Amino acid sequence: MAVDTGLTPPPAPALFTDRYELTMVAAALADGTADRQCVFEVFARRLPHGRRYGVLAGTGRLLEALPYFRFGDGEIAALREQGLTDARLLDWLADFRFSGDVDGYAEGDLYFPGSPVLTVRASFAEGVLLETLALSVLNHDSAIASAAARMISAACDRPCIEMGSRRTHEEAAVAAARAAHLVGFATSSNLEAGRRYAVPTTGTSAHAFTLLHDDERSAFEAQVAALGKGTTLLVDTYDVEQGIRTAVEVAGPELGGIRLDSGDLPTLATRARELLDELGATGTRIVVTSDLDEYAIAGLAAAPVDGYGVGTSLVTGSGAPTVGMVYKLVERDGVPVAKRSEGKRSVGGRKYAVRRHDADGVATAEVVTADPVAARPGDRDLLVPLVRDGEICDPVSPAEALSRAKAHHQRVRGALPPEAFALSRGEPAIDTVTV
Amino acid sequence: MAVDTGLTPPPAPALFTDRYELTMVAAALADGTADRQCVFEVFARRLPHGRRYGVLAGTGRLLEALPYFRFGDGEIAALREQGLTDARLLDWLADFRFSGDVDGYAEGDLYFPGSPVLTVRASFAEGVLLETLALSVLNHDSAIASAAARMISAACDRPCIEMGSRRTHEEAAVAAARAAHLVGFATSSNLEAGRRYAVPTTGTSAHAFTLLHDDERSAFEAQVAALGKGTTLLVDTYDVEQGIRTAVEVAGPELGGIRLDSGDLPTLATRARELLDELGATGTRIVVTSDLDEYAIAGLAAAPVDGYGVGTSLVTGSGAPTVGMVYKLVERDGVPVAKRSEGKRSVGGRKYAVRRHDADGVATAEVVTADPVAARPGDRDLLVPLVRDGEICDPVSPAEALSRAKAHHQRVRGALPPEAFALSRGEPAIDTVTV
Repeated sequence: MAVDTGLTPPPAPALFTDRYELTMVAAALADGTADRQCVFEVFARRLPHGRRYGVLAGTGRLLEALPYFRFGDGEIAALREQGLTDARLLDWLADFRFSGDVDGYAEGDLYFPGSPVLTVRASFAEGVLLETLALSVLNHDSAIASAAARMISAACDRPCIEMGSRRTHEEAAVAAARAAHLVGFATSSNLEAGRRYAVPTTGTSAHAFTLLHDDERSAFEAQVAALGKGTTLLVDTYDVEQGIRTAVEVAGPELGGIRLDSGDLPTLATRARELLDELGATGTRIVVTSDLDEYAIAGLAAAPVDGYGVGTSLVTGSGAPTVGMVYKLVERDGVPVAKRSEGKRSVGGRKYAVRRHDADGVATAEVVTADPVAARPGDRDLLVPLVRDGEICDPVSPAEALSRAKAHHQRVRGALPPEAFALSRGEPAIDTVTV
Repeated sequence: MAVDTGLTPPPAPALFTDRYELTMVAAALADGTADRQCVFEVFARRLPHGRRYGVLAGTGRLLEALPYFRFGDGEIAALREQGLTDARLLDWLADFRFSGDVDGYAEGDLYFPGSPVLTVRASFAEGVLLETLALSVLNHDSAIASAAARMISAACDRPCIEMGSRRTHEEAAVAAARAAHLVGFATSSNLEAGRRYAVPTTGTSAHAFTLLHDDERSAFEAQVAALGKGTTLLVDTYDVEQGIRTAVEVAGPELGGIRLDSGDLPTLATRARELLDELGATGTRIVVTSDLDEYAIAGLAAAPVDGYGVGTSLVTGSGAPTVGMVYKLVERDGVPVAKRSEGKRSVGGRKYAVRRHDADGVATAEVVTADPVAARPGDRDLLVPLVRDGEICDPVSPAEALSRAKAHHQRVRGALPPEAFALSRGEPAIDTVTV
């Protein structure tokens, strides 16, 4: 079931789990309900922050982890040490491998309030065990992808570079680089994302490199000697205008790019372009960084900028670092079930979903139904089989899964109505229709 | 240098690194500046979000990773594949092990704008390589700890439970559980945090467990049979009042606790307390969960609540998911250096730091100086030696490091002036004085 990627397998993910999943399994094993056939669904009650659409990301990472979701001797010993000593539970966990079915939206697809982005059919015990990991992965990765997609819109066709690793947990950084690439970020600074997912990596130098040298000129000379004239020189350590002049003197008009990382970027970029042109460096690109988010990127649309480096706001989801997806039991032994808690009611029963499109191929509604929908022209089935009897349906390498998700995202995003790409707060771009 | 913890070592952390750190090393090796002796400092220019103080967390995790920060054959091959083929660079990386010195604030200490929380003295090449990982760890963990500390204040002496794993990346969740425990969260739901850091874990059941059963009573009976009468029953799946009655019928007045996860919690908790008392369950605790943050916790101060479960807002830093720490070259071959970029100027030269206290032991200032400070009564030296010649100064297990950080935090937090604990936005509780 596992794909051999030539990489070290990830650390056993079974303990990335809330303790209550295991106490529930213990109690259900004891009273005979553990084997009841259940359907769990992952969905978000709303989009965060007045967003118009969400991007589902993380499915590929979840499928990567699934074959390793086992309780080995080390895990069992750790559970004992934490006071989980119920012999029936521990025996069951030692034998556990997921044997159920999973369907879901294809990774990279869009989602809206109530979209059933993942459906797990399994015994209660098997299904409930996956809750924490599934939500961790999907909530994090979808938050990053959803924010990143807005940045890509704001950047129009100019390339975006992901460079937020230092602003988030070191493993989250790898997942963030993956999610950003999925929606169209051209490259990432993160070397591990390059290794695991073949995300193209880029990077040249920081202010420290200039400060290391006796003067800016020696730093630029060293960088050009090592990385070639096509490199990007960081010109704002001391004085931007002098930095640009020195950069062109050192590299000549073939200089690949300059980077601006401070100050009022629209003004600075305009002046930099004029100066570069005056110096004959008409092909030298201007890359800007420095606390960019989708709004700052949009504010630079009229400026002569050739690329955006985005860090903090990307890896923190630009105000929405998690997307509030939940994993709910919706059916038990064929009977729809739902809680009735105030403000958190859910709709029972397994769901099916199609996205409806008009004659021009523009999405018009997310149709979520209790029974499979009779397809109309323009309907696209949203749920695809991911796991059958515990086996990944279409095992591919992590890099190939990302590449497919990227292509799928580009396709489905093109079908959104134009108002979906407004950056202002608003309603979801299409309504979710529950039938 | 590595402490044998009996655990699988973490995945090789060397590629949790921005590509430009390596291109800088390559260029510096080529022009002979790689060996210049450098001092890098980690500090935050400001506290996020009008906070009054920050909590430094992550130092222990960084020290855990340092011995594994090596470039093995797999890493070197991955770099080649990404186009980093410079032979001098790859040879140097293959031999790399950090051989410099690191000082820093003790983990769990407080920090303020400009506090030099970590100082790395090494050759340029060795020092610059650690930048990305150091910032990832400290920015993430400090964000969580800083938010968690405010929740602990708001909760007064009532216990807080960390339960946010599902709302953040699965590895970030483990670090978040660790950071929360550091500042005083009693327990976590995260089993891996239990394994790696001996954070006490707790958990009982979710709504799914009630829905799995034919009725609420059977679910409660199963849970009490498996976990004992001291367990906490979740009573809001259907009707709270009926849920409480059933819970006490099933477990008797010895019922350990009930959990409320929806609705208007102050009102519900008050009614629940009255009903429990009426039913004779006067010792049964009331635990509340459901999108709590420090403000919601404060809003429950007058309600009869015995514990708070906190998820989303904790693991996302309650509005500040990262704290903006930077890693800056401040000295090269004994010469202070600093960039002059607009809005991002930094102060050159290695710093020393003490926290000044008045005669009553209340902190009055963070004194950051270019030379070691002549100690006055009430001054506490903030920088402690962490690494000498590449060796961890005081190697302890991950759990022991956390336990020490927790004790240290409690001590230093007690020295803050009372206004530091206001939840409203404001200025840092003490001024940073640069001498």
